[in-house]
Amino acid sequence: MPKKVDHEARRQEISEALWRLASARGLEGASLRDVAAEAGISLGRLQHYFRSKDEMLLFALRHINRLAGDRIRERIEALPGEPTPREVLRACLSGMLPLDERSRVGVLVGAAYFTRAAYDETLRAEAKNGIPQLRTLFADQLRRAAERGELPPERATEDEAMLLIGMVDGLSTYVLLDVYDGRTALRMLDGHLARLFEVNGAAAGAPVAGGG
Amino acid sequence: MPKKVDHEARRQEISEALWRLASARGLEGASLRDVAAEAGISLGRLQHYFRSKDEMLLFALRHINRLAGDRIRERIEALPGEPTPREVLRACLSGMLPLDERSRVGVLVGAAYFTRAAYDETLRAEAKNGIPQLRTLFADQLRRAAERGELPPERATEDEAMLLIGMVDGLSTYVLLDVYDGRTALRMLDGHLARLFEVNGAAAGAPVAGGG
Repeated sequence: MPKKVDHEARRQEISEALWRLASARGLEGASLRDVAAEAGISLGRLQHYFRSKDEMLLFALRHINRLAGDRIRERIEALPGEPTPREVLRACLSGMLPLDERSRVGVLVGAAYFTRAAYDETLRAEAKNGIPQLRTLFADQLRRAAERGELPPERATEDEAMLLIGMVDGLSTYVLLDVYDGRTALRMLDGHLARLFEVNGAAAGAPVAGGG
Repeated sequence: MPKKVDHEARRQEISEALWRLASARGLEGASLRDVAAEAGISLGRLQHYFRSKDEMLLFALRHINRLAGDRIRERIEALPGEPTPREVLRACLSGMLPLDERSRVGVLVGAAYFTRAAYDETLRAEAKNGIPQLRTLFADQLRRAAERGELPPERATEDEAMLLIGMVDGLSTYVLLDVYDGRTALRMLDGHLARLFEVNGAAAGAPVAGGG
């Protein structure tokens, strides 16, 4: 077996061990030794991949962000016909909520990473990296909706985009604390979208009225 | 000096040591030993107050929540005349944002606590404890605003209250990651309030139009 394949297989094993630990009790309290034990390899071997806990957390975060990106893309591609901007936004928001076990772990790893990033400039740079892109993506959808007459033009702003991102993040926190479940969070976000997309008192760009 | 005073003074010292650690590098990575060293007391003495890290974190969280509650009350009491429901809501929201060093530490300790609470049922019960009360407080203000004709009645809901709480929490996260500053977050929340309180296309209950 070529060496590259070994390497990739090992990374995959470690990645799955990380995931199991994150599901069970979080990565914040987990040491490199714990991860090595969970992956069934020596600490020295693991340190070949991650020299520090921050490196490990960064790897886990990138892995999870990639999965989250895939999940959102899949949701958008699963929309029938040519989706309206509102449908695209809803697909993104629901992809960001902890609606199942995998997205739940994703939110938890993100939170563990955040509590470290707040004190560490290098980690922070990575953590905040994706936000402006996400804000631009959301703002683009809002502008597209305004052009189609489905959103009052004054609401097609970067601020509205950022409010949406903040909202889904904040609601996700309370889902993980069992204040309410993911479905309820999605219903609340739908309520916000409905009000955002109200044009002269009437709904616009909603799934029922939508399509290509 | 009576024993009770000693006890209270010692708790105060520990509380300040916790605060310094939380400001500098967070409580998540801090051991009881670290806190004892910072407070200038022995580990045994500290363990007289906290038997575990969870107990310590719980103490810090309650302390910080008390301070946050005080800050919000002060902001409401500082409003001139008889404040409108919208002004009360804005005072609450701005009191929850990390606009200064103390509220910044508060949000960080809350986040550290959250990452543990997500895996621990006992901690979770405490963490989610205050949310329904906060939601009720917000919903009451929305209802009061609707009664005064400052808010369309269909927006005076528990869901709108929860969206506001989620929004301020999510935006706070990004302030701590330096995506934008606290003032910008407050401006975005003001934009949301302005849209929420729009009655037939006109602003209502805003500071300018407000007062008793």
